[in-house]
Amino acid sequence: MELKKYLKERKELIDREILKYLPPEPPYGKKLYQAVKYSLTVGGKRLRPILCLAGCEVVGGKVEDAITPACAIEMIHTYSLVHDDLPEMDDDTLRRGHPTTWVKFGQATAVLAGDALLNRAFEVLADWNFDCERKIKVISELGRASGMLGMVLGQQCDLDAEGRDDVSLEELLFIHRHKTGRLITASVVVGGITGGGSEEEIGALRNYGDSIGLAFQIVDDVLDVVGDQEMIGKNVGSDVEKGKTTFVKFFGVDGAKKRAREEVERAVEFLKVFPKDKREPLEGIARFIVEREY
Amino acid sequence: MELKKYLKERKELIDREILKYLPPEPPYGKKLYQAVKYSLTVGGKRLRPILCLAGCEVVGGKVEDAITPACAIEMIHTYSLVHDDLPEMDDDTLRRGHPTTWVKFGQATAVLAGDALLNRAFEVLADWNFDCERKIKVISELGRASGMLGMVLGQQCDLDAEGRDDVSLEELLFIHRHKTGRLITASVVVGGITGGGSEEEIGALRNYGDSIGLAFQIVDDVLDVVGDQEMIGKNVGSDVEKGKTTFVKFFGVDGAKKRAREEVERAVEFLKVFPKDKREPLEGIARFIVEREY
Repeated sequence: MELKKYLKERKELIDREILKYLPPEPPYGKKLYQAVKYSLTVGGKRLRPILCLAGCEVVGGKVEDAITPACAIEMIHTYSLVHDDLPEMDDDTLRRGHPTTWVKFGQATAVLAGDALLNRAFEVLADWNFDCERKIKVISELGRASGMLGMVLGQQCDLDAEGRDDVSLEELLFIHRHKTGRLITASVVVGGITGGGSEEEIGALRNYGDSIGLAFQIVDDVLDVVGDQEMIGKNVGSDVEKGKTTFVKFFGVDGAKKRAREEVERAVEFLKVFPKDKREPLEGIARFIVEREY
Repeated sequence: MELKKYLKERKELIDREILKYLPPEPPYGKKLYQAVKYSLTVGGKRLRPILCLAGCEVVGGKVEDAITPACAIEMIHTYSLVHDDLPEMDDDTLRRGHPTTWVKFGQATAVLAGDALLNRAFEVLADWNFDCERKIKVISELGRASGMLGMVLGQQCDLDAEGRDDVSLEELLFIHRHKTGRLITASVVVGGITGGGSEEEIGALRNYGDSIGLAFQIVDDVLDVVGDQEMIGKNVGSDVEKGKTTFVKFFGVDGAKKRAREEVERAVEFLKVFPKDKREPLEGIARFIVEREY
């Protein structure tokens, strides 16, 4: 298969579908609606929803069935970016090559747009025309992944670690497992739940997700040091500037790259429970993560 | 029945139960956990969860069944307060007589604590050991009430209206119907859904909720002018200071009080579909709203 073409087509599918999940524009407070729409449309690789679709297909489900949870996942991911970019948080002005939501719409509306996206994700899942039991499993999985034992906790830990030079590898792993790992894992797991995967299959997807999530973060840290600003769409070297501890500190650039490749091979190994012809997209995505920009 | 005793007992029940819905304290990022706990425990009348319990009972359901959704509703309400108090929003330093969450834990953690509470609410509902179809209905109702066509939209509209002297009564009604009305209505409706109410009963609860929601906001506006700072636990006159249009502007203090009383009588009228002995708490709550502090 041609991975680049696959990713492009899937990204375009999500780009097209996600706006259908917005409610109609309200008579008052239009700025909120515009901020939500802007946040959802300024680029992004759509990696998480693509993982959700692929997770559904690898267990034998239909890609159409997973579009609703895939879009809900992208809404949750987008909400977290909008809030993380706020001045009181990471204070980022540029995201995916565009002004961040708070720069464009103001801080208050950015807080509200994030809230709106998070709410909307759960609303969309509740109203999804699908099997009730699976819907509940999906909502539970995503709530846990993004909540106070998941992504939100990871962001708090990340803030707590900023500027400290005593962050251990254990703490760094904890931060990233929560800040980025949990939602990446949940994305592919939710796909598996939607597609009706067995417990063993869901378990394999969970392990796969954990491994690519870690690889993804390690690569992010490496890119922050060696990446091309235009390519990654944000300011290079911002981690060092902010006094963030990264995997590069513990492993060096080459060591970190090696760790990322090892995690990807582990991820690919976990996919062996699935038929060879079905697991190709998830294998490709795992490899894409370490090859993406260097 | 003795309403004061009833409200006190129900408030204590929620105070006791709500902390059981927090996850265990994490090894890192404890500040987030503490901020969430603080936000949930600094007082409050627990009006919305009490409405949920009463809505469940009035349709013949058991109060125990409604404790989970009641606590989830209070989490959603609390998240909205935590975010609304932020400097970039209403910039409030005092809430229920205590420092607001951002004053106590910093702005970033306050954003995250709000996010955590909203997430947790949906997580708790998904994991609730209850009928699947009703759970989904409850999640959908709450998502809609608090989201970008509900409470979040109301807050955006409120910010948009600040400092403008051309806010019409129609716009003011839109703001409050969304900012406070929708979640109050959803609270009693969710109780009705939980208790297995018929469509007619749910409809009556919806109308009741809309009326008390409006009455509640009108009274809030009046209290901001004439209230006792110690009693309401926030700064009196803050609406005028912030250039907010209030119902007092359109109706005057006495006119606004009259409108609130009329709404309450309408609310009580909607309850007539329920047996006389069952509707007493909801009648009492409606009357309590206009009598609470003047």
